[in-house]
Amino acid sequence: MRRKLTLKQIAKEMDVSIATVSKALRDSSDIGLETREKIQAFAKLYNYKPNNIALSLKNRKTKNIGVIIPEIVHHFFTTVVSGVERVANKRGYNVIVCLSDESFDKEVINMEMLASGSIDGFIMSLSKETQAKKDFHHLKEAINQGMPLVLFDRVAEEIYCDKVVIDDAQGTYRAVNHLIDTGCKRIALITTVDYVSVGKLRTQGYLNAIEDAGFEIDENLIIKIEDTEDCEEPIRNLFETQEFDAIFGVNETFAVSAMREAQVRGLKIPEDVSVIGFTDGILSKYSYPRMSTINQHGVEMGEKAAEMLIDKLEEVEEDEYYRTEVVKSSLTIRESTKKIS
Amino acid sequence: MRRKLTLKQIAKEMDVSIATVSKALRDSSDIGLETREKIQAFAKLYNYKPNNIALSLKNRKTKNIGVIIPEIVHHFFTTVVSGVERVANKRGYNVIVCLSDESFDKEVINMEMLASGSIDGFIMSLSKETQAKKDFHHLKEAINQGMPLVLFDRVAEEIYCDKVVIDDAQGTYRAVNHLIDTGCKRIALITTVDYVSVGKLRTQGYLNAIEDAGFEIDENLIIKIEDTEDCEEPIRNLFETQEFDAIFGVNETFAVSAMREAQVRGLKIPEDVSVIGFTDGILSKYSYPRMSTINQHGVEMGEKAAEMLIDKLEEVEEDEYYRTEVVKSSLTIRESTKKIS
Repeated sequence: MRRKLTLKQIAKEMDVSIATVSKALRDSSDIGLETREKIQAFAKLYNYKPNNIALSLKNRKTKNIGVIIPEIVHHFFTTVVSGVERVANKRGYNVIVCLSDESFDKEVINMEMLASGSIDGFIMSLSKETQAKKDFHHLKEAINQGMPLVLFDRVAEEIYCDKVVIDDAQGTYRAVNHLIDTGCKRIALITTVDYVSVGKLRTQGYLNAIEDAGFEIDENLIIKIEDTEDCEEPIRNLFETQEFDAIFGVNETFAVSAMREAQVRGLKIPEDVSVIGFTDGILSKYSYPRMSTINQHGVEMGEKAAEMLIDKLEEVEEDEYYRTEVVKSSLTIRESTKKIS
Repeated sequence: MRRKLTLKQIAKEMDVSIATVSKALRDSSDIGLETREKIQAFAKLYNYKPNNIALSLKNRKTKNIGVIIPEIVHHFFTTVVSGVERVANKRGYNVIVCLSDESFDKEVINMEMLASGSIDGFIMSLSKETQAKKDFHHLKEAINQGMPLVLFDRVAEEIYCDKVVIDDAQGTYRAVNHLIDTGCKRIALITTVDYVSVGKLRTQGYLNAIEDAGFEIDENLIIKIEDTEDCEEPIRNLFETQEFDAIFGVNETFAVSAMREAQVRGLKIPEDVSVIGFTDGILSKYSYPRMSTINQHGVEMGEKAAEMLIDKLEEVEEDEYYRTEVVKSSLTIRESTKKIS
């Protein structure tokens, strides 16, 4: 039985990274000529078929859309997928979902697998590792070979394609302003590390709101967390060492964990501490008190992304023209913030 | 440009259901001879290629596993997918996810799409509509044509294949017993409608525990809800009309909604009302107080399902031998239940 040779197997055989193999097969000058030739010879010997063969079969329509998301146990990403499904089904397309698990290699492998004949176009949100590496060759290659791509949420300037984002900075600015309007004076920020594009934008919105209100920026009130799993300890530390009357969390997990910590300490929400989180997911809805949030409109983002992709596939939109749609977030005021007096 | 004809299009053209087309093309005697012949002639005329062509290419290995889940904005199903991913990647397989959206037709369409060359085998949980209809011809056909299938969580007696389930009845029995051990005497049950296999089993576990403890079964304490979205109203009604000292919810949403309703009414948890939910998801972990739950071990279920499927694909397991693996649930005691005195 003969099995199809994959990028991963070539990488293992040649003892180089998947990115190196992928680039060498595209004859990229990023890779030294000798290595490039070795890899190309190996691929030829074992009859490796790169994507462009499949991609060049331009007339073959699968009526399938490929969606690659960084995580699946994640409310926001799954709501986007449900929005993609809704529009895709209405317009006669099936949706295939793959995960990158926040890994650059898995993103490359899944793109290769899907591009080789299973789908007509991609809808994707970049993995953290891809954003940190800033290596986008796999996305650029897909675009160059005529495979339409729509990026959502986690996007990159360097990639020329259709994009759907939310007004991360302005949304946060409005939310922090709302806290200020209700009388909060010392507002803590729980955010991600900087290379996550949306975390960085939300941090910027927070800083702008604090400055525009004429308050001092206190670096001690800003904590940057690598992973939602390990947020409890840094949040406890924030409560132990700092004084504040409000918290803004750049995601729901950070915000609801802060709310819990406040309740464990006997603090009243919103009287002692007000809380707003970015993302309106199930944690906000079912929490007690119900949490005020910025609604990220995941379903709408998915619907927009699917419309843009299918318009490209059906040539409603010109190939060479790229748009960035900015979905406007909205503030959902519930019980974790004070009334404006 | 010539597009591939789909089951859906044939159904539309012939003004019959997708199931009818699918059965007619398999020459099933469920469909009248005349209709069958008409559909077969139409399919032939337009050169429709049914799955069995792809399926008969037994030697062609894609190294992809297809997973079909009923919902994606759903913690349990997504944890199962992450378990499948973990094992699949370790053993050199990619995972492709599709959604049935609880719809029978979408389940049939997605199976057809994936089976026609994209994957080597299926891991699935049945849609509510498929469970209500009890029409399993699409699954039986896949199995008959040599496509391995593993069902998880929502399974059916009538389908002969590998299965991974949890001890729904016994898990619930243990949890209700725990409530009784902590002194609870009137335990309400919030459950689903009966055709959802797991809801029915959990209800059975509750009834057995109540009876074995020598309590009367009070039908007024049992509410059956169609959809998690609309559970607030019936739960409010339960609190308004009945007296009880504990609640068991067959899913996390029901249980956490009951907890909220108790708090809104100024009841103390667990002193006035104890709460346990089936499924240990993010709502339980981040709620205040933290909710005691039955841990459904979604990741482990996904890992088991992937091991079983890949064993079949790689002929570690004999084709004709089917197993049902029962994953043992465990009780996670947190803050929403009283201590045993």
